[in-house]
Amino acid sequence: MNIIVIGASGTIGRAVVEELGARHDIIEVGRTSGRHQVDITSIASVQSLFERVGKADAVVVAAGNLHFGPLSEMTPAQFGIGLQDKLMGQVNVALTAQHYLNDGGSITLTSGIVADDPIRYGVNATAVNAAVEGFARAAALELSRGMRINVVNPSVLQESMAAYGPYFHGFEPVPARRVALGYVKSVDGLQTGQVIRVW
Amino acid sequence: MNIIVIGASGTIGRAVVEELGARHDIIEVGRTSGRHQVDITSIASVQSLFERVGKADAVVVAAGNLHFGPLSEMTPAQFGIGLQDKLMGQVNVALTAQHYLNDGGSITLTSGIVADDPIRYGVNATAVNAAVEGFARAAALELSRGMRINVVNPSVLQESMAAYGPYFHGFEPVPARRVALGYVKSVDGLQTGQVIRVW
Repeated sequence: MNIIVIGASGTIGRAVVEELGARHDIIEVGRTSGRHQVDITSIASVQSLFERVGKADAVVVAAGNLHFGPLSEMTPAQFGIGLQDKLMGQVNVALTAQHYLNDGGSITLTSGIVADDPIRYGVNATAVNAAVEGFARAAALELSRGMRINVVNPSVLQESMAAYGPYFHGFEPVPARRVALGYVKSVDGLQTGQVIRVW
Repeated sequence: MNIIVIGASGTIGRAVVEELGARHDIIEVGRTSGRHQVDITSIASVQSLFERVGKADAVVVAAGNLHFGPLSEMTPAQFGIGLQDKLMGQVNVALTAQHYLNDGGSITLTSGIVADDPIRYGVNATAVNAAVEGFARAAALELSRGMRINVVNPSVLQESMAAYGPYFHGFEPVPARRVALGYVKSVDGLQTGQVIRVW
C-alpha cells in the first residue's frame, strides 16, 4: 500500500512510519519536513498535497494543536485553536481524501485519552477530541467505494512525559511504539467508524 | 431561582419555559424575540446579555444551528456552520456564564441523539454534538463556586417530524414536554458533567 503519513516527524508519526514502513510504501508529510509539506488547517494546502501525491491507499493524520489552559480564563479565540487546528485540520484531510484515495482506502485520525477522561486545563482538548471521534463515527456511514475511517485515541506518551506529565498525574503513559499499533490496526484491518484506544 | 432561557421561543425552549416557569422566574431570551435578545455566536453579544440580565442562578441554552448534507459534497465552510453556531454559541454562553452566575449556579446546554447514533447527512451534527458533550464533561471539573454544567441530549422531537422526519427514519420521536424534563433535572438537580439523554 501507498500510505500518506501527515505528521511523520512527530513522536507518534515516527513510530507509525517505522511500523507501517516495514511492509508498505510511506509518503512522509510534515508542516516543514518530509517528502511533501502541508498546512492541514488550509483546505487549499490539503488539496494541493493530494494532487501532488496522486493515488494512495491510506492516509494517517498524527498532527494537530490544542489549547491547554484554565477554563476560568479561557477566551473563545483560545477555544478556537483546537477547532481550527486539530479538528478542522483533520476534517480537511478526510473531506479531501475521500475524493483521492483508491477504492477501499482508509483514513486514520487522532484524538486522545482526555476525550473520555478529562483533565484540569483540558476543556479544549476534551471537546476537540470528542468531535474528531464523532466526525469519524458519522463519516464511516457515508464513505463510498469501500473506504474506511477510524480514530486512534492514545493515552499520554511516555516520550512526552517531560513536557506534558504535569497535566497527566495518575495517567499510565504508553510508548509511541505501542500507539503506532493502533494506526496499523486501522490501516491494515477492516474496521470502520471505530475509536481505537491505546491506553 | 432566576433562570435565563436562551432559545425560549423554540420548540424545546417553550416547553422548558413552561416546565421551569411553574416555580422559577424565567428570563426569556431569543435571537429576535423574548425579553432580551442575543446572538450567541458573538461573545460580545453574550457578554452584553449577562450584563443586562445581572445575577441569575441558571442558564439554559436551547439554540444552535447545524449543517445537514452529504459527506461527499461537504466543504469546510459547511462543516464550520455547526462549529461556529451550535458549538461556539454554547461555549460562548458557558465561558461567560461562569463569571456571572450566582454561587451554585447551573449551565445546561443542548446536544442531540446523533452524537451517539449517527444518521445519513449528519456528520456535522454528530461531531458538534459530541464536542458540546465533551466540553461539558471537562468544564464540570473546573467550574468554581459550586457551579454545575450538564447537557441535554434529546432524540428527534415529535413536533419536528414534519421537517426532520426524513432524516430520522426508525428513530422514536419524543414530545418537547418530555425533553423539557431533562432540563429540569439539570437545573433543579445536583448532577454535573452529565449527559441527560431523553430518547
